[in-house]
Amino acid sequence: MTEKPPLDLHPDRYFSSNTMERKIARHLYDLVKDVPLLCPHGHVDAKLFAINAPFPDPTELLIIPDHYLFRLLYSQGIPLESLGIPRIDGGASETDHRKIWQIVGDNFHLFRGTPTGAWLKHEMVTVLGVNKRLTGETAMEIYDQIQETLQKPENLPRAMFERFHIEVLSTTDAPTDTLEFHKQIRQSGWNGKIIPAFRPDNVTDFMVKGWRQNITKLADVSGVDTSTYSGFIQALESRRAFFQEMGATSTDQGVTTPFTIELTKTDAATLYDKAMRDQAAPEDARLFTGHMIMEMARMSLEDGMTMQVHPGVIRNHNTLIYQKFGADKGGDIPSATDYVNNLKPLLNKYGNDSRLNLIMFTIDETSYSRELAPLAGHYPALKVGPAWWFHDSREGMLRYRRLMTETAGFYNGVGFNDDTRAFPSIPARHDVARRIDARYLAELVAEHVLDLDEAEEVIVDLAYFLAKKNYRL
Amino acid sequence: MTEKPPLDLHPDRYFSSNTMERKIARHLYDLVKDVPLLCPHGHVDAKLFAINAPFPDPTELLIIPDHYLFRLLYSQGIPLESLGIPRIDGGASETDHRKIWQIVGDNFHLFRGTPTGAWLKHEMVTVLGVNKRLTGETAMEIYDQIQETLQKPENLPRAMFERFHIEVLSTTDAPTDTLEFHKQIRQSGWNGKIIPAFRPDNVTDFMVKGWRQNITKLADVSGVDTSTYSGFIQALESRRAFFQEMGATSTDQGVTTPFTIELTKTDAATLYDKAMRDQAAPEDARLFTGHMIMEMARMSLEDGMTMQVHPGVIRNHNTLIYQKFGADKGGDIPSATDYVNNLKPLLNKYGNDSRLNLIMFTIDETSYSRELAPLAGHYPALKVGPAWWFHDSREGMLRYRRLMTETAGFYNGVGFNDDTRAFPSIPARHDVARRIDARYLAELVAEHVLDLDEAEEVIVDLAYFLAKKNYRL
Amino acid sequence: MTEKPPLDLHPDRYFSSNTMERKIARHLYDLVKDVPLLCPHGHVDAKLFAINAPFPDPTELLIIPDHYLFRLLYSQGIPLESLGIPRIDGGASETDHRKIWQIVGDNFHLFRGTPTGAWLKHEMVTVLGVNKRLTGETAMEIYDQIQETLQKPENLPRAMFERFHIEVLSTTDAPTDTLEFHKQIRQSGWNGKIIPAFRPDNVTDFMVKGWRQNITKLADVSGVDTSTYSGFIQALESRRAFFQEMGATSTDQGVTTPFTIELTKTDAATLYDKAMRDQAAPEDARLFTGHMIMEMARMSLEDGMTMQVHPGVIRNHNTLIYQKFGADKGGDIPSATDYVNNLKPLLNKYGNDSRLNLIMFTIDETSYSRELAPLAGHYPALKVGPAWWFHDSREGMLRYRRLMTETAGFYNGVGFNDDTRAFPSIPARHDVARRIDARYLAELVAEHVLDLDEAEEVIVDLAYFLAKKNYRL
Repeated sequence: MTEKPPLDLHPDRYFSSNTMERKIARHLYDLVKDVPLLCPHGHVDAKLFAINAPFPDPTELLIIPDHYLFRLLYSQGIPLESLGIPRIDGGASETDHRKIWQIVGDNFHLFRGTPTGAWLKHEMVTVLGVNKRLTGETAMEIYDQIQETLQKPENLPRAMFERFHIEVLSTTDAPTDTLEFHKQIRQSGWNGKIIPAFRPDNVTDFMVKGWRQNITKLADVSGVDTSTYSGFIQALESRRAFFQEMGATSTDQGVTTPFTIELTKTDAATLYDKAMRDQAAPEDARLFTGHMIMEMARMSLEDGMTMQVHPGVIRNHNTLIYQKFGADKGGDIPSATDYVNNLKPLLNKYGNDSRLNLIMFTIDETSYSRELAPLAGHYPALKVGPAWWFHDSREGMLRYRRLMTETAGFYNGVGFNDDTRAFPSIPARHDVARRIDARYLAELVAEHVLDLDEAEEVIVDLAYFLAKKNYRL
Repeated sequence: MTEKPPLDLHPDRYFSSNTMERKIARHLYDLVKDVPLLCPHGHVDAKLFAINAPFPDPTELLIIPDHYLFRLLYSQGIPLESLGIPRIDGGASETDHRKIWQIVGDNFHLFRGTPTGAWLKHEMVTVLGVNKRLTGETAMEIYDQIQETLQKPENLPRAMFERFHIEVLSTTDAPTDTLEFHKQIRQSGWNGKIIPAFRPDNVTDFMVKGWRQNITKLADVSGVDTSTYSGFIQALESRRAFFQEMGATSTDQGVTTPFTIELTKTDAATLYDKAMRDQAAPEDARLFTGHMIMEMARMSLEDGMTMQVHPGVIRNHNTLIYQKFGADKGGDIPSATDYVNNLKPLLNKYGNDSRLNLIMFTIDETSYSRELAPLAGHYPALKVGPAWWFHDSREGMLRYRRLMTETAGFYNGVGFNDDTRAFPSIPARHDVARRIDARYLAELVAEHVLDLDEAEEVIVDLAYFLAKKNYRL
Repeated sequence: MTEKPPLDLHPDRYFSSNTMERKIARHLYDLVKDVPLLCPHGHVDAKLFAINAPFPDPTELLIIPDHYLFRLLYSQGIPLESLGIPRIDGGASETDHRKIWQIVGDNFHLFRGTPTGAWLKHEMVTVLGVNKRLTGETAMEIYDQIQETLQKPENLPRAMFERFHIEVLSTTDAPTDTLEFHKQIRQSGWNGKIIPAFRPDNVTDFMVKGWRQNITKLADVSGVDTSTYSGFIQALESRRAFFQEMGATSTDQGVTTPFTIELTKTDAATLYDKAMRDQAAPEDARLFTGHMIMEMARMSLEDGMTMQVHPGVIRNHNTLIYQKFGADKGGDIPSATDYVNNLKPLLNKYGNDSRLNLIMFTIDETSYSRELAPLAGHYPALKVGPAWWFHDSREGMLRYRRLMTETAGFYNGVGFNDDTRAFPSIPARHDVARRIDARYLAELVAEHVLDLDEAEEVIVDLAYFLAKKNYRL
């Protein structure tokens, strides 16, 4: 058997090993590798930069918050408790972070071939200075080394942000959020651009746990009475205005399906009142959410914010895990999603208006070539978001380009989103995207579909300008 | 940045850049590059060859009739009016064709990586003698050059037809069509073989605008009273016979779903009578259309015409565009299509009869490996049409081969269809198909799945004999 | 045209022809090419090894039992009767096996690019010593040669089993089966490990022809009264125990959809009683089958047998063929399959229990990346079976790896299943799987996704250890 090599990042990783293509890919990648990062969609906590404290330890940094990572360990029978995932039902979880790290080291082979494994490797090499592969044997040594590295001033969150060349980073925030940490960052005098994005799911979906309390909170933070539907709409508009003051340029909605419907004001109000009396049924919630996508489009036309919709995920599929550990613990599963019928009301009302910037995402890859590329290749308002979540990966992004480009072209896309909770993984994710784009374009050049000068222009658009334009950054 | 090269077509385009595969692909492509073109399914207007007048100008030739092209410009916010697309609601559209061409030049980068861009490039180089890339700067110069070229006698439609080595070209025609231009061509003494194909959608689908008038027209042209269902059926049979006299060897049906059902004569007549009283509901139309697919199969068994069905498209998704500009303006969007359940009645009745030649198309690529290849790899009557519409492209055709071949083999396909309204794009389209087949077969040879002599036989079958046999040309 | 080469197997077949990848693939393949074969899921008849008689003739060995093969001939208009497929309705079929073999030779080009063609070639070269390509001209010569070869002692079934290095071969058997041949094999003193697998479809699905008789037979073989639901359950448990004694380590269920539901004992009993009175409707059967998947999971937890489910196939789509020739004659067609909603009850009840080993298969490839990889990458009990049936092929297995690995990793798979009725094709099938895995891993190494030493470990796991572990062999 071949000997285990030191941990390093090969400069040609993710490029085709075909000599001609690899040479072109290298050339194209070189044009964008140092271009600043635009991060218009993500889930990093603004608090990180407001406080700017050292990251506590490797396990706290890399394992506990990352459901991409622990879901795969869990799938092989490792209890979430033993990985330190906090129980919300009062049960105990492992608190010894070295012990948790050891488990990860013992099982790190499970991540072979996965994007999670690739990102972690990239972070270890470029951010944390690790040069050995994580295994059961090396786990403790690496833990100590990362621990030490994290204490250095150059690894404080703000310093990392600057070192990563992040031009702008968007968080994702509820309308009920007061954006205190965003304010603190502004007031601190630090120049890092951290902006919020407006995600109203916790007040637009009646089925969200605590919806009534959220409506009350919405009234509190907006100063608008939300006891009626029209008050609710005003409160949302007021919050959008506040988010814009705080730098927001986009909104986002996470929905089970992209179902849209235009209700009359009276019908919408009737549903809202029903929900306020705790009498809303799932079908009421479905109708109201479908209506609120229409309303968000109307508001976007008025205030100019870019509108994002992320449909197609069945949340909290695993009830036991949801009850013990809460949401976002690996139990969200994609399902087949119909865009062509569901979006018809929305696109017929707003899709021809090129002032609207509607970015639709999918986690059902069958919809790329069948529905989303044809829709985006026709409606002026519609763009398609990048390969997302499970498909934010070497193969996933390549499939995205292959399935989208011929029908929608490059210019109905919006560049890359890192969409992460894991701040130190941001450069790794952008790097994969840039490499895969270089690889795809290199193939087109090598096969004489594009000339090299065209590919040179496209790669810069994909890495930078499409995000800048479509998120109005 | 790399300099912009002259416009040319690389002899190895679309072949893998892997040296071994490219060499084999070249060899295979050379065997078919000059084989005559069979065009058994398309939408070129017979009038073109009846009149044989020079093409008016580049914009009229290449832009205004091509919804593949203008949909992508529209998707980026360029109004259809500014591209000269005629309004059917009385609104004004740009009439200055140089101005329209300039817009296309200014935005030609939008077509990078698309089949439309590739076809246009091929036409410019091989048909229109252009040797500069179309951009904002070159637009007017190229316009003038094409304009001049189009006046030459060798660029009259019939001369082009001959130069393209087209052996036979099928148009697509309604049963109500008198095929006047087909007659004129025959009477002209010109030898170009232009044949009609029988597409009865405008009388088999109650929901088509003007259905009642079409039924009246059908009576007029057939001389058969269509006031009853049995008269309607006779009229169709009579028109099929007429189309056959005029050279037709195939029929086509475009349907929302491939739903089939065998109604009793009485039930079918009841639906027909309802429609004649303007009382048919969408569900009636669905049942009747499903029944008419069965009837068309029965007639095909009797008169020997090859039967094509194109399902899976939601027509005129964009109501505004449909109202302003009419049908075929880029607003037709594919949707998920079930073949296995929908075709069961049809295949159980006629699928075991190898005298029937039923060619089924799909625009839902998920059905290739899941449904169509298994069905075509079993039922003697069923063949699968080539990658169609959005997937008539480098990546689309390669996916088709990868997803179909292992289960259905090569011989349950029917060769290539160019399916175009854009006459001068015909050689470009066949060329891409032949190159992709050469590329796919080269891969199989290089990976020792096929021997070279087998691939040599297959490529000729794919380029010529499968179409000849399956369309009975 | 290139000359026809002799029939041989290129040592690099199925590897990428890219030089760097091919070299790595060879190296990885060499590590597993001689590893013993684990065959935990298949349909070879135990009788073959109990009797250990010579295979009668080439047609009986290779053509008549193989619906993969004759379906493709049938799809091109060759009647099943002429291929010797026995009629169950009393009609005549060809009995001259030389004549049948000649038809296959005349039409062997139909198998170009198909796995069936590849397996047959592999068998001819490595098992049957043929060195000419099968054509119309060579058919009779090859028939004679195979005929002679089959008489040799080294080609008796047991000798082949040993030569193939099969470590264990599982058959698939109904609960009503007495496993006589398995017993005979044990008693014979021969050491070949042939074990049964428990597949209860013929008693769990009310819609199966002869269900009532099967229930009676179940009572006979188990000695448990099956006139009530609780007796039925006990009888199943008793048969499972018997199968385990006979070496079984797994169960299997073939269902139209993976619908699961937990009924109360009373509700289940009510359905069962209805079926016993011949009054069960299709919806009753659906509910009961969905419930029986839950019950099988419960029993697996208790007795430790690995549980397999094969959903998504519409059986006997072609009624005419079914009536004339019976089941398994090429008329089974896959259909779109929803796992995420259908499996929710099952996974919520048993999915978190890592003692359960539930292997889910799919024939709807869209579910790989959308549903099965995310589910298997989360639930400890769930694993995903290998590419199956039509997709047990060069392209199919490569798609499987590409679509599964990034989300589920390598370790939520279970290695390879040959799933065949055709005993001599077993080495061919494992060889393709090992080559495609070597090829995929070589790509990952060449593109610096994995280090070589990691790939070396993974390929052995894929070829051997994952099956051993997951089928508890």
